[in-house]
Amino acid sequence: MAFNSNIPDIVIGRLPIYLRALNRLAQEGHEVTSSHELGKRLGISSAQIRKDLSHFGGFGKQGTGYQISYLEEKLRQVLQVNREWEVALVGVGDLGTAIAHYRGFADRGFHICCLFDNDPQKVGKKVGEGLVIQSIDDMPNVIKKNNIQIAMIAVNAEHAQEVADQLIAAGVRAILNYAPINLNVPEGVHVQYIDPVLHLQRMTFYLK
Amino acid sequence: MAFNSNIPDIVIGRLPIYLRALNRLAQEGHEVTSSHELGKRLGISSAQIRKDLSHFGGFGKQGTGYQISYLEEKLRQVLQVNREWEVALVGVGDLGTAIAHYRGFADRGFHICCLFDNDPQKVGKKVGEGLVIQSIDDMPNVIKKNNIQIAMIAVNAEHAQEVADQLIAAGVRAILNYAPINLNVPEGVHVQYIDPVLHLQRMTFYLK
Repeated sequence: MAFNSNIPDIVIGRLPIYLRALNRLAQEGHEVTSSHELGKRLGISSAQIRKDLSHFGGFGKQGTGYQISYLEEKLRQVLQVNREWEVALVGVGDLGTAIAHYRGFADRGFHICCLFDNDPQKVGKKVGEGLVIQSIDDMPNVIKKNNIQIAMIAVNAEHAQEVADQLIAAGVRAILNYAPINLNVPEGVHVQYIDPVLHLQRMTFYLK
Repeated sequence: MAFNSNIPDIVIGRLPIYLRALNRLAQEGHEVTSSHELGKRLGISSAQIRKDLSHFGGFGKQGTGYQISYLEEKLRQVLQVNREWEVALVGVGDLGTAIAHYRGFADRGFHICCLFDNDPQKVGKKVGEGLVIQSIDDMPNVIKKNNIQIAMIAVNAEHAQEVADQLIAAGVRAILNYAPINLNVPEGVHVQYIDPVLHLQRMTFYLK
């Protein structure tokens, strides 16, 4: 697929939310849905949903709604999640261990294929489904050799930028950063952040 | 503080990011910063940062930048994170257990005070620093009695809406939802979502 050029990133950001809602509708036994029904579930206007999907051709007929399985398939194609991706995980402390154990990644096509840590005590130990922790010194070679494009960073804030730089130098183009720090990355590299405390702090503003 | 009326939620959403960057600058030994330096670290324009902060009075003098400790204190006041908040956690499976063990919440003022699960096998067991899992049947009373306003949901997608409804009926006004489903909540209740797979799917669009 080659849509990359003109579509706003904020539209791309909504597609996984649509896909998740469609999965859920299918699980509930629905076969057809509408921008109205999707919008109601997601708190997004139906006009916005139609406009977002129109970037890719629309996928539905006026008045008849969307065939859920067809729209799911198309969105998976657009997002390139109709395949399995290998993901490196760097940092196997408490948080990294929890991530390695979390089954939600593999269930949705993201296979954690290698773990790295800088603690010699941890290197060689097994985590989760038998993955062996490798030395961070071997990270660049392993990433290159396996052509890994996606990594998750779960190291301390102090080390996150250095790890990101190494990952990018080895070919990583998408980073999910759990370290509570903003990363500087060159153009063409994508970073998303997971920091639940930020989300809590955003809500306390509104509490009495 | 009473700023709630006119400030766009997207501005509020950036304040925790500014606060985190200020914490980091302070840890690195800085005492003063500028909208330019903050912007460079965060990939946000300095004009945007000045405009965001101007909603609350500005906090800096033209040409002299920001006193970091002062700005941190002010942002904590605005966000109401200059105090400790009690947080209920619902669902103590793999994910909930990892959340209960994660020290990053308490370190930043969010104290997980009670755990609930609907599995009778789990009720009464201890997790993390000695918190005892309580029955979900007792949840409404415990929430009300302790005047808990914040909850994290880590149950299955199937049960998340029902749990949210019960929490809201008991007085919860802010929900951090880890279940991979959108929640319908009444006005005045805030929901934020943590679903790392959505962030990964957003990035694969751009990969080759």
